[in-house]
Amino acid sequence: MTKKSLISYRSHCPIGRALDILGDRWTLLIVRDLLFAGFKSYREFLISGEGIATNILADRLLNLASAGIINSKSDPADGRKLIYALTAKGFALAPVLLELSSWGMKYSGGTGPETIIKQWKVDPAAFLKTLAKNQAR
Amino acid sequence: MTKKSLISYRSHCPIGRALDILGDRWTLLIVRDLLFAGFKSYREFLISGEGIATNILADRLLNLASAGIINSKSDPADGRKLIYALTAKGFALAPVLLELSSWGMKYSGGTGPETIIKQWKVDPAAFLKTLAKNQAR
Repeated sequence: MTKKSLISYRSHCPIGRALDILGDRWTLLIVRDLLFAGFKSYREFLISGEGIATNILADRLLNLASAGIINSKSDPADGRKLIYALTAKGFALAPVLLELSSWGMKYSGGTGPETIIKQWKVDPAAFLKTLAKNQAR
Repeated sequence: MTKKSLISYRSHCPIGRALDILGDRWTLLIVRDLLFAGFKSYREFLISGEGIATNILADRLLNLASAGIINSKSDPADGRKLIYALTAKGFALAPVLLELSSWGMKYSGGTGPETIIKQWKVDPAAFLKTLAKNQAR
């Protein structure tokens, strides 16, 4: 018996397949908040800078969990709430986001942590190691 | 007099701003076709693997041109047709697409040119130089 994927892929191209999961204006912003801002909760994602709507946020969190990019558990501080974390598959999106950030800083007038991008460009492997260590905390 | 941008940005975050331009399922596929497949014409983008609809393709080409990511000129072989090319701003998206491809190969079962990704990982600068040379032809 084959397990049917919940994601409907349009082609075998790995870029196309990545965009089948990530190709909208919101999904990667949630990954960004988990990766760089240390956000973990629905409420934190909601008040992040871009003004995501509650229904879109709920939908994207479900999609990300179903794609194996995030997982959730009860908040130790308040059992009625969930906290989210990136899986290894989700953390592996760091290079995509760092390159998007680098491009956005250079070409769209976005302002951001230039030192982070510099560290990433100088030694990607060391940078990802430090970033992973910060995730684990 | 300030020139008003055609793009409405949601925040100052460079990742958010990049996604304001690129955050949909189709835009980066057109950039991919220009960058790696050598496609240049509306007709070539249309028959690319993912089955883009004519109205979406026309809309995304306009958006990409208005964002300064592609430009167009008359096809020397047929003056009634346009051919498209990446600008420097568009070519600078190569690292984003290469990282998306790398992720898509590892995590979504996408099959693609693994040797390209290997070359990219081993020596990004040299790889981009070769890719730029191929664009110019």
